[in-house]
Amino acid sequence: MNPPQATSSRVTETAPDTPSPSDQAALWRQRFESELEQRLRETGDTPGDLLESMRYSALAGGKRMRPLLVYGAGQALGIDVDELHGIAAAIELIHAYSLIHDDLPAMDDDDIRRGRPTNHRVYGQSTAILAGDALQALAFEVLANDANLSQNPAAQVRVIGAVAHACGAAGMAGGQVLDLAAIDKTIDATALETMHRLKTGALIRVSATAPALYALAPADQASALSDYGACVGLAFQIHDDVLDVTASSQQTGKPSQGDAARNKPAFPSVLGLERSRERASELVEKATRSLSELPGDTRALAWLAGYAIRREG
Amino acid sequence: MNPPQATSSRVTETAPDTPSPSDQAALWRQRFESELEQRLRETGDTPGDLLESMRYSALAGGKRMRPLLVYGAGQALGIDVDELHGIAAAIELIHAYSLIHDDLPAMDDDDIRRGRPTNHRVYGQSTAILAGDALQALAFEVLANDANLSQNPAAQVRVIGAVAHACGAAGMAGGQVLDLAAIDKTIDATALETMHRLKTGALIRVSATAPALYALAPADQASALSDYGACVGLAFQIHDDVLDVTASSQQTGKPSQGDAARNKPAFPSVLGLERSRERASELVEKATRSLSELPGDTRALAWLAGYAIRREG
Repeated sequence: MNPPQATSSRVTETAPDTPSPSDQAALWRQRFESELEQRLRETGDTPGDLLESMRYSALAGGKRMRPLLVYGAGQALGIDVDELHGIAAAIELIHAYSLIHDDLPAMDDDDIRRGRPTNHRVYGQSTAILAGDALQALAFEVLANDANLSQNPAAQVRVIGAVAHACGAAGMAGGQVLDLAAIDKTIDATALETMHRLKTGALIRVSATAPALYALAPADQASALSDYGACVGLAFQIHDDVLDVTASSQQTGKPSQGDAARNKPAFPSVLGLERSRERASELVEKATRSLSELPGDTRALAWLAGYAIRREG
Repeated sequence: MNPPQATSSRVTETAPDTPSPSDQAALWRQRFESELEQRLRETGDTPGDLLESMRYSALAGGKRMRPLLVYGAGQALGIDVDELHGIAAAIELIHAYSLIHDDLPAMDDDDIRRGRPTNHRVYGQSTAILAGDALQALAFEVLANDANLSQNPAAQVRVIGAVAHACGAAGMAGGQVLDLAAIDKTIDATALETMHRLKTGALIRVSATAPALYALAPADQASALSDYGACVGLAFQIHDDVLDVTASSQQTGKPSQGDAARNKPAFPSVLGLERSRERASELVEKATRSLSELPGDTRALAWLAGYAIRREG
């Protein structure tokens, strides 16, 4: 007889056929691209170059940080990450729409994004506005039509509500208002953090918490993922501001020193470069500590927290 | 003994305490305003003048055609219309967002809407874009949080999916692309109808069909409401084009002859004024005929179909 060994789970975790977190992220990214591409075909009969414009921005690559957080959270909860493609796609569609609208002349007036002309520079402002609008609608259509989510419609509705709240007036859209209002102003670190908690933080946080809503996870696990997401979201943004000062435009795919050129408050100008880096590291440590509450494999989430402040673009 | 009379339902329908369809519409409108106002308070902590900008457009009155269609469809299905405020509010929030974005300089560049300066003329373009974005998100948040809808989450998800589809790339947003593409072009009546079936028709149609999804109505009733909504939506738009030519700007709350000034194809210029009016009347007759399939009181829907082409603004 071979009784189960107390160390069996640790053995599994370090089994030689388990990909490293970095390889795992690459595999998830690859799978995500095809899942997203598929959902950008199923939009029905779409007039003119609207669908092309939507696909231009949504399928432009990028780090896919939010989808990776969705999958990482699923793995940390011990659920099959293949059930989460709908959530991952919907959140990334919302992220894509927000970038199109943020780049508009009436907003940040950016010409380059991910090393290519911004959406409105290619398709014109009216199509760009409508592509953003339609991407937001598609995100909710994807959530409503997802076969895995539909297994538990009550949980599905909670995911939809959480995503809607995260991208609305009290989340992403509100954060962009604060961002634009801060131009040419002096604001302190607290106000800057508040802005980022809304502008990018809310959608990053819901990337980590939506899988918990889907999986009907206990409150302490949902809360741990919420803390993790809030810390990683802010760390990610601080590092973005640091890269804006320190990285080349080739690395980031957008013009460097953009915050200074636009007279936008940013962490390096408010806290100083060194303190900004420290603050980002503290947040990543805090995020990592919250992972101990979770029942599944948390290596991907731990790696992603580090990646948020290690990446060079 | 008083056996039930075969005519009892007809007696109820004409009971003296039943409001006329016109009075019923006024009562519904009044109740709707307070329901909508309430949902525009519950957005959480909203920065700057974003919430004010959202309220400026969403609470600016208007005909409230879509909410009235929601309530009318509910009554025609025999359900309690007080269960439908969430659906009505969500659809009107989407309508309000679409008007803000349509009025932007990059789109129709309108300065006046409902007799007042358009949203971007008051709050600036960036806030107007974000108010539209946040109103769309709020619409889905309202649907996800609605207590009546939550009684049956599977039906709730179908309503959310139908609304998302109606306002997305294959619906309202796609229709606006066609609308802008038609400027300075000659298009025929079929292309014009296709454009309007998407641009305004899709959201009007879902106003009539969403209550059927909510009420788990049989397919023939859902189909009747879909036919009704498609006909009323198109008739409404034809009449809008007719009013653009025949009504004063005081009546419509926007500059008259706007289509001609902008060189936009419209039903009077494509079909002629007389044939446009005939086509609208035919559609209303067709809409009214489809009501015979419905089990409840259809007088409000019959009245609304007529109102779509009788209104003077």
